[in-house]
Formats: sequence, C-alpha cells, structure tokens
Amino acid sequence: MYSVDLNCDLGESFGRYTLGNDERVLDYVTSVNIACGFHAGDPVVMEKTVKMALEKGVAIGAHPGYPDLMGFGRRNMDISIEEARAYIIYQVGALKSFVEAYGGKLQHVKPHGALYNTAAKNYELARALTEAVYDIDSELIFVALSNSIAVKAAKDTGLRVANEVFADRAYNKDGTLVSRKVEGSVIHDTELCKHRVQRMIKEGKVATMYGEDIDIKADSICIHGDNVKALEFAQGLRESLLKEEIKLEPLDAKYK
Amino acid sequence: MYSVDLNCDLGESFGRYTLGNDERVLDYVTSVNIACGFHAGDPVVMEKTVKMALEKGVAIGAHPGYPDLMGFGRRNMDISIEEARAYIIYQVGALKSFVEAYGGKLQHVKPHGALYNTAAKNYELARALTEAVYDIDSELIFVALSNSIAVKAAKDTGLRVANEVFADRAYNKDGTLVSRKVEGSVIHDTELCKHRVQRMIKEGKVATMYGEDIDIKADSICIHGDNVKALEFAQGLRESLLKEEIKLEPLDAKYK
Amino acid sequence: MYSVDLNCDLGESFGRYTLGNDERVLDYVTSVNIACGFHAGDPVVMEKTVKMALEKGVAIGAHPGYPDLMGFGRRNMDISIEEARAYIIYQVGALKSFVEAYGGKLQHVKPHGALYNTAAKNYELARALTEAVYDIDSELIFVALSNSIAVKAAKDTGLRVANEVFADRAYNKDGTLVSRKVEGSVIHDTELCKHRVQRMIKEGKVATMYGEDIDIKADSICIHGDNVKALEFAQGLRESLLKEEIKLEPLDAKYK
Amino acid sequence: MYSVDLNCDLGESFGRYTLGNDERVLDYVTSVNIACGFHAGDPVVMEKTVKMALEKGVAIGAHPGYPDLMGFGRRNMDISIEEARAYIIYQVGALKSFVEAYGGKLQHVKPHGALYNTAAKNYELARALTEAVYDIDSELIFVALSNSIAVKAAKDTGLRVANEVFADRAYNKDGTLVSRKVEGSVIHDTELCKHRVQRMIKEGKVATMYGEDIDIKADSICIHGDNVKALEFAQGLRESLLKEEIKLEPLDAKYK
Repeated sequence: MYSVDLNCDLGESFGRYTLGNDERVLDYVTSVNIACGFHAGDPVVMEKTVKMALEKGVAIGAHPGYPDLMGFGRRNMDISIEEARAYIIYQVGALKSFVEAYGGKLQHVKPHGALYNTAAKNYELARALTEAVYDIDSELIFVALSNSIAVKAAKDTGLRVANEVFADRAYNKDGTLVSRKVEGSVIHDTELCKHRVQRMIKEGKVATMYGEDIDIKADSICIHGDNVKALEFAQGLRESLLKEEIKLEPLDAKYK
Repeated sequence: MYSVDLNCDLGESFGRYTLGNDERVLDYVTSVNIACGFHAGDPVVMEKTVKMALEKGVAIGAHPGYPDLMGFGRRNMDISIEEARAYIIYQVGALKSFVEAYGGKLQHVKPHGALYNTAAKNYELARALTEAVYDIDSELIFVALSNSIAVKAAKDTGLRVANEVFADRAYNKDGTLVSRKVEGSVIHDTELCKHRVQRMIKEGKVATMYGEDIDIKADSICIHGDNVKALEFAQGLRESLLKEEIKLEPLDAKYK
Repeated sequence: MYSVDLNCDLGESFGRYTLGNDERVLDYVTSVNIACGFHAGDPVVMEKTVKMALEKGVAIGAHPGYPDLMGFGRRNMDISIEEARAYIIYQVGALKSFVEAYGGKLQHVKPHGALYNTAAKNYELARALTEAVYDIDSELIFVALSNSIAVKAAKDTGLRVANEVFADRAYNKDGTLVSRKVEGSVIHDTELCKHRVQRMIKEGKVATMYGEDIDIKADSICIHGDNVKALEFAQGLRESLLKEEIKLEPLDAKYK
Repeated sequence: MYSVDLNCDLGESFGRYTLGNDERVLDYVTSVNIACGFHAGDPVVMEKTVKMALEKGVAIGAHPGYPDLMGFGRRNMDISIEEARAYIIYQVGALKSFVEAYGGKLQHVKPHGALYNTAAKNYELARALTEAVYDIDSELIFVALSNSIAVKAAKDTGLRVANEVFADRAYNKDGTLVSRKVEGSVIHDTELCKHRVQRMIKEGKVATMYGEDIDIKADSICIHGDNVKALEFAQGLRESLLKEEIKLEPLDAKYK
C-alpha cells in the first residue's frame, strides 16, 4: 500500500504580525515545519504553534532559514559553511526545546526558502546542514527537494531523508522547480495537480514543463495554508489521495 | 570543607565584534555563562565558545537576556510573563543544542543584565523564568542573586538554585546590589574584595554599604574577564581562596 | 470657524507581513504618521507609503518608536536620554529622506506606542525627543497627548505642537488615557464618540471616566485603520464633523 | 598640481561593541564614510561620529550596506532593485539627518562591503543605488571602485563620481580587486604601496597582479584605521604624498 506525508510551513507570524491559518491547516496535514525566528516566527509564536501541533497530534519539524526577517528568508545570502552549520544548530535547538518542554519529540528538519533551494544545488552547503542536524540528533529526518543533491548529502551523512514534491509546481528536466518568475511555473488546474501527485506516488514519475517524464520520489507533499484557496486545495488533495487508497501518515511512521 | 564556584560571562562577541578574553578567562573559572544571541553572542560565537569550554573542562550555563543587542540586555524592557517564558525556552534551547552536539551537558541557567536584576525583585517574572528552565530540564541549576526573590522562585519551582555573590560590589540592606550609578558601589581595594568573599563563604555574612552585616549565601562568585585587570583580579581571588582551603568546583559538584 | 486634523498611523507593514488598510484609510485622514523601521515598517514599505500619501495629498509625519520590532514598540524600554535623542534623529531623518526624494515636505513627528506614552509623563525624555526634532528642522510640528508634559516640552523647545485626542478612549482626571487593561477604557458607542469629539473641539472639554469634566485641546484626532470597522468609524466621524461645520485640515494649515 | 582624497570607514562600533580608532584616524584622512546602522553603527555611534568629524573638519559621507549586522555587510544578499533603492534612501537619509542637525553638509555616499563589490560589477544594481542618491540630493558625490561599472552608472545618472583606489590591494586585469582569498591579494610591502599610489595619481596606471599595466583613476584612496599598524601606514602614506607635492583634500574641493 502507498503512503505519503502532507507537510505545511507553520508558525510564520511575528510579534504583531499574523501570517497563515495555522489552526485550520493543522486539520489537513500530517507534519508541520515550524519557523525558528530567523526568517519568520518569534519565541511566543513558536511556543503557541508547538502546543497547537501537539494537541492536534501532528508531527513537528524545524524550519530554519537565513537570518533575514526583512526578506522572509527568500533572498540568497553568501553565508559560509561554518555559519550555515551554526545557524542550523541554533534554530533547530531552539525549536526542539519548545517541543520537548511540552513532552513531544522533534521529527524532522526542513530548511526554508532560499536556504532550501541553494542546498538543493550545493552539496557542500547541504552537507553542512545535514551534519549539523545529525550532530543535534541522528534520529532526525531531513526533508529535501526530491532526488536533489541535498537528498544525497543527507544520505551520505547517515540521516534518514524524505523526498519532498510540490503538487502545483512545474519541474525542470534536472528535477529542480521552474522558477516562479517563469510563466507556467505554477499549475492552477486543481485536477491536474491531483493527478500529478498520484502519479508521483504510484509511478515515481512526473512530466517536466517540456513534456518528457523524469523520475521523482514522493515521501512528502508540500501544502500551503496562507489563504482560503490554499486550504480548499489542501482538502481536495487530501480527499483525492484517500480515495486512491494512499495512506496519509507522518514521516516517522515510514521508519517504524 | 568549604567550596565555591567561580563563574564568568562568556561568548559575548558578535559577528565582526570581539568582546572579552574568552580563552584566557577559562583558566580561572569553574563555570561559564554563555550568551545566547539576544543581548550578545551569535550562533558561530556560541559554537566556538561551547567547544572551548568543553575542551577546558569548564561547566557550561546558558546566559539568556532581553532581545536587545543594541542595549546589550542592560536596559529594562516591559515584557510580559508569557514573553519572558518563551524567550528563555528559545535561548536556553539554542545553547543546549550546541552543548549536546559536542557531547556535553548544560549545567545551569543564569539570566543576564537587566533581566537578572528585574527577576531578583519581581517574583512573578522570576517564577516565569524558573518554570521555563524547569520545563526544559528539571535537573538544570538556576543561578540568581544571593537570597533574592529569584532564589525563592527557583526553589518554589523545584529547581536546584545557586546563590551568586559579587566580590567587588557594595550591597544594600536588602541584599540587592548598590546601583553602579552610586559612588562607592564598586569596591576597588583588591584585598578587601578577597576578604569579603572569604567571609561570605565561611561566615555567610557581608557588610552592607552602611556598615551593618547581613546574611548572604555564596554558592558562586561572579568574575569578569573583559580586560587585563579583571583577569589579574580573577587570578588573585582564585589564589586567595585556594590558600584558605576553599575548594573551587562547578555548581553541579555540590549536588552529586 | 473650528478646524481639526484627522491623523492615522500608516506604513506598519514589514517585509512579507501586511498590516492595516493603508490605501483606503488615506481617503479619510488629513495627516498620516509613517512608521520608521524600528517598531514597524521597512525601507520598501516606507517608500511605497510615502508615495501613496503624496499622491493623495495627505500630510506626512514621522512615527518613530523604540527599537523593538518583536514588541511593536509597545513595551517600555529604559533607554537613556542620549539614546532617545539619537533614535529620533535616525528615524525621522530616514523618513524625511523618502519624503524629500519625492518632492514632499515632512509636516510633523509623532512618537509611537510606549515611547509616546512615556514621553507624555516624563519631561526629560519628552524634552530629548522635542530637541532632537528641533535640531532636524525647527519648522516640524510635534504631535503629543493633549495637555500632557510632552506638549509643554515641545513648547519649551520652541516647536509648534499639536494636541492629540482620542475619539474612542476614556480619560483619567489628569488627562492621560485610561489603560487598555481597565474595563471601559475603550468606548464602543459610536454616537457617543462623535459627540465627545465635537465637544472637545468646540468646548475644549471632555468627561473623564469618573464623570467630571476636564479641559482638553483637540488639534488632531487619532483614527485607526486596521480593520473594516475602524474604516467605517473613520468615515462616520468624518461626516459628523463636516456636518457640524468643523473644517478638516492638516496640522500645518493652522500655522499658515 | 595633483590632488587626492584620503578616505576611511568610520563609526563601525555598535552598542557595547567598539571597533576601530575613530578619533585617531580622523587626523590622517580628508573624508570619512560613516556606517548607517545596517551592517554596523547605531544611532548613538552615528551621532558621536558625525560630531567628531565635524569638529575635526573632515568631510562626511554615508556608508550604507546590506541589512546584515551579523555578517558586517560582507556577505552578498540577493536583494531586489527596489529594495536596494529603498535601503539607500533610508540609510543615507538617517546619516544626513545627523550631519544637518549639527550644521554640516553630507559630501558623498560610498556603499559598503559586498554591496560595493556587487555594484562594481552589476550595472542595474549600481544604477539603482546612484539614482537613489541622486533623488536624495543631486549634489552628492558617489564613491565607487575606480573605472568600474558603478562609476559609469553614477555618471549616467548625472552624479559627480569619485574613483576610489586601494593602496595595499592587488588588481585584476579588468580593474577589479583580487579576492582576499587569493594569495598575494594584499600587498604588505609599505614602500611598494606608496609607490603604486603615486603612480596611480600621477600616471593613471597600476600594474596588475600579472604584471601588465592598466589604466586607473585615483580620486580617493581608501585607508584603514582598525589597528595600530593601519594608522602607521596611513601616516606614512600621507607623508609620502605630501612629499611628492600631491595635495590632500576632500572630494568636494575638486568640484569647486
């Protein structure tokens, strides 16, 4: 039987600023990635978000990013390998502390935004991130772009790794996502999105933007929760997966 | 036999900015309080400082402060109880993560600057801090101003607590420190400082600025390491204590 | 004939975070106070907000606050007089630069949140702020709580000053606002709010929370724009004032 | 007669952290570039530094950088053109405000660190910076890497521009600096440095790292002031220039 994890970024509010529908999206996903205060989130938001996720029984991951609140972690920064390592230990440690203060266990780590994208292409950076995660807790799961260099880095490090796919994004031939700046990079046809996801899970294939199929592995699907439409899409995707008898379960269920 | 801990604030550098003689002061103390990135310190500095302390076999504590790098955590901020709790879990968790990544164990938590001083007078705030520490790890030791309200809060919470004294500072009748703005608040006579510390440890007494004795408990002495004179003072104090057959050992040795 | 200014805080968004209905509220007010990046706002938001205000012909003021984005400038901070002065010159200068880059002229300065409230009670702090404003440009108008110590400080400094009143807030006998934590501090009866404002403008009186009248001066009324209800209230208030033949005009029109 | 400006980065301290020998270096230079709070400096430091420079009669420039205090503005950040423009208006405006509060006049703008280096190669970015400067005050002088794309952008914008050279750095064939990571990129032979500078000024030539000459224009020479050796070098260079009858004067003297 097939199974997959549905993950969503959470806890992106900051101080007086609210972002996302954190409480509602928790009903649709099996794992959440909680911001750690560098690109979004603050300690009060982190504590509140961790509590909500634990109450709903959703698995928790850390979502560390570049130290760039003004740019929401979406602007690439030329940080050194040493800095990348330390930023991960700091942010993941902070979030882990909230999870453990409430009796939970941190499941995974998924880098955010520009850090995620750069690590998918830069082995040295990815390796620094995965070794930092390993040194924090070798049982943590690393979530990375499906079949990317970051997946390889996590395996080389000795970490369990989850290949992440995107339901509504177009793919390049090399398995990277087509830049949002390119027309057609986001797929708006809901039914097509569902079909693509099912195929990724069952056949391990996806059609690129240019037509041909490439191999892809779908351990986890990234869901958005920042508006009503996103929530509706999440619910629709969820139902279509269950209808296809694809089990929805958090990442750590796979390894038990 | 008497024993006491010598502690020093460490890891207060930030990015391009260097502060203190971290490497040298490690030779004089038995415990260090490492800044956690809110009032001083950054992830790279934290990692480096933790490694140095572990190599030298000095016990490590977290030194959380107000989120105020520009004011070095020395300006009081009217944060809420909820915020105080979350800021502690965040900062202590981040530092603990570095310590454990290198196979060490976090020994204690000592609030920094204005947070330390306010907690010494405000039970509700102190209780929020100590409960946050307890929820992170109930074995952690809380370091607070000797005989202050913060000591009581730590005990009420169920934490082990270390009473901290200051070798070169004048005391008020209520056991609080005389403000640095008052003339005579800092004692410059080195021999007097040494004598006062010995008396605190052996007799549990100290003379206030106004002459009369008050009760004081000296589990740990705060040492500075920010200039050559401070280092010389630390060495002199250390020697005077050893000569008096007062054992120097980290806080957790007391509870073994 | 009576006249009054309607002012609103604007430009409080930050990076990925949106706050307020900046574009819509500009249709109801005669002056806006734009955040300067310390408690809210960022350079991109400031530029965009300044452009919008200039296009709509609304007078612009700087809205400097404590350096506390996480607390939105609402938490008191024990900053020194020297720091207060420098923080004002920095923030007002930054905003003034955007206004002048687009050919406009900065009209006023209104401190934000906790800085506004503390300055209303602390002459020394208020004086530091008003002298900083004077040194930037002695023609700037300082906006302060009606009849407060900050008004006096501005006058002593030689600045023009606008007494600000609040339509929907209860007053204490000393003219300060009743804390939001007290029940009854916010007046929800829209008609009562309108009536109170008219009386402040025409009679120079307002009833305190405890019934008796106090003197008040209403040069400018603070309006909120953070939700639909606030916008409706602004529109209603505006209409009621025009109906009473009270002219709505920006602060600098008074002095021409 | 030949003339040249000697400039130095100043005001890089932050809060409790001190950097550089600001007071002493003011005796050796004709212009200073003062940090504006994004990569270094804070409002109190800026006010103090501006006052010192005005008292010593040294011309003042703004030294804006990336919003990255942790990386000291030395790490490249993929900011947008819109962000670059707004960051310049914000930072330059803040510094200009201090200068004018003390009756001075801002002379120039020199981007810092990674922003300086990226602008030297990226016309679109450089143009955004120079247009922002022009919109603040079209009389400001833009300081950029000699003969670089940023010089062209400043000219195209209609700004006066100063070509900056480095006494102790090796040059590539295209006039860019050899990266500090490359061996030989920093020239330690003091006499050679002096000779190179004189040749740049008098002949408009410099030998690259690979031996051949390239054209170079030397309107201003960058001096460091962060340690005793740097100060000695500044003094030596200054004396050697005066001995060669090269006049030392600030940038705006050229255009009078």
